[in-house]
Amino acid sequence: MSVVDAGQFLIIGERINTTRKRVREAVRERNAEFIATEARKQAAAGAHYLDVNAGADPRKEADDLKWLVETVQAAVDLPLCLDSPSAKALKDALPLVKKTPMINSITAEPDRLKDFLPLVKKAGGPVVGLCMSAGGMPCGVQDRIKAVEAMCAALDKAGIARTRAYFDPCIAPVAISADEAQAVIEAVRRIRNDFGGAHTTCGLSNISYGLPQRNLLNRTFLALLIGAGLDGAIMDPTEPQMAATVVAGLALMGRDSFCMNYIQAERAGMLGEVKR
Amino acid sequence: MSVVDAGQFLIIGERINTTRKRVREAVRERNAEFIATEARKQAAAGAHYLDVNAGADPRKEADDLKWLVETVQAAVDLPLCLDSPSAKALKDALPLVKKTPMINSITAEPDRLKDFLPLVKKAGGPVVGLCMSAGGMPCGVQDRIKAVEAMCAALDKAGIARTRAYFDPCIAPVAISADEAQAVIEAVRRIRNDFGGAHTTCGLSNISYGLPQRNLLNRTFLALLIGAGLDGAIMDPTEPQMAATVVAGLALMGRDSFCMNYIQAERAGMLGEVKR
Repeated sequence: MSVVDAGQFLIIGERINTTRKRVREAVRERNAEFIATEARKQAAAGAHYLDVNAGADPRKEADDLKWLVETVQAAVDLPLCLDSPSAKALKDALPLVKKTPMINSITAEPDRLKDFLPLVKKAGGPVVGLCMSAGGMPCGVQDRIKAVEAMCAALDKAGIARTRAYFDPCIAPVAISADEAQAVIEAVRRIRNDFGGAHTTCGLSNISYGLPQRNLLNRTFLALLIGAGLDGAIMDPTEPQMAATVVAGLALMGRDSFCMNYIQAERAGMLGEVKR
Repeated sequence: MSVVDAGQFLIIGERINTTRKRVREAVRERNAEFIATEARKQAAAGAHYLDVNAGADPRKEADDLKWLVETVQAAVDLPLCLDSPSAKALKDALPLVKKTPMINSITAEPDRLKDFLPLVKKAGGPVVGLCMSAGGMPCGVQDRIKAVEAMCAALDKAGIARTRAYFDPCIAPVAISADEAQAVIEAVRRIRNDFGGAHTTCGLSNISYGLPQRNLLNRTFLALLIGAGLDGAIMDPTEPQMAATVVAGLALMGRDSFCMNYIQAERAGMLGEVKR
């Protein structure tokens, strides 16, 4: 069991994703042991949900996702985060899940909302909302807030509580634009404050794309986002110091009474130590 | 030379302080080689100033501080941060310094201001202002802001530019109060925004007092404070990942054009890598 309280910060393990070459090969070869190991490693590192993405080959996605769902569930007891832009793939996978899953993801695009919200409603758990509209990746704070407004209006209309939403501001690489990194931080702050209990999450590792020492940038950005109120991340919990940064950040932001989780994480050997 | 631009973030090396047992012994024994090594290590790790504190034995402080000043200056080329609550010790040390020093520190106490401001004016460089009044350690944001107001009024009256001030919100251990950690973050934000170009700094390591994995807490709090606009710290630059967190934090906060310092720091081997 994770020492991080999921209500304080939701850790979604990102490793089982067919954009990773070794995962793609394992899915193609139906290498269940490789996938099971990835699942167990992330569970041990404190993940609350495991993301499963089988989108590398769209023609086979529905079958591949079903296989991933069953393979991961055979290995660990965690709920899944079903990660697909295809309503069909999700619809096929949903009957197989054992625990209430997270749906990843809706966007502000009307067609996507129309296809996905009935599935979200039926699934009954949290949903990731990417701050994207028909125009693609957002630019600046206002673009992101407009997308959240559109998604919240659609959730309200569909009778889905906003508290089930985890909005992802869509991180662009800081090497391309430091302004966008700033916009993401400010968007997290506003979404947390202005949207009636809606949550925030993010796909973190994009921030460091194209730069060296990616873990350093990833965990430093994670700390900055926790400072802005981030309450979840799609991340690699097995990366050195990543879960440790979550635990430390929550303690420092007053989200860990008497630093009890911090001390518990240390006893569990989760905080490691940094060596050069 | 430090890869961090001092105008973006001022790194003040904290290690030469007689509250540390080995430094206290080295001062007592006039062990110049030990002090020189401490100075060189911090310079190599990117410090802009080196703090020198000889306060352990107040009866001998003036002599000890003079010896420290000369010993450190013989070893490295960096300017010093003269750290003493004694106007007499500072007055004796000032004629010996080769480069414009930092004075550490004034507080909001009227007697301290009366004694120190003439020395600050004469020294001509930056000054650390602790957010403390006659009542001792501050509590909450407002206490800290009131102390800054009092110090700014005194600086204005003495004809010392506020831009020379680095206000230190005085960090209390998070193990004792997470509210105080929050108050420090908010105080940094306000001091930076509301006091006409005044700077902020902090004695960082107090945050982790009484908890395990102190480096983890120190560097995570450093990231949170950089997010609030912190522009300096009295810290141990040789601690694993501390200078790396500064470099990464500045890049992510848009204070490093095109991530050039970040890339340069990596080439200089400063960013290290974290191993468990």
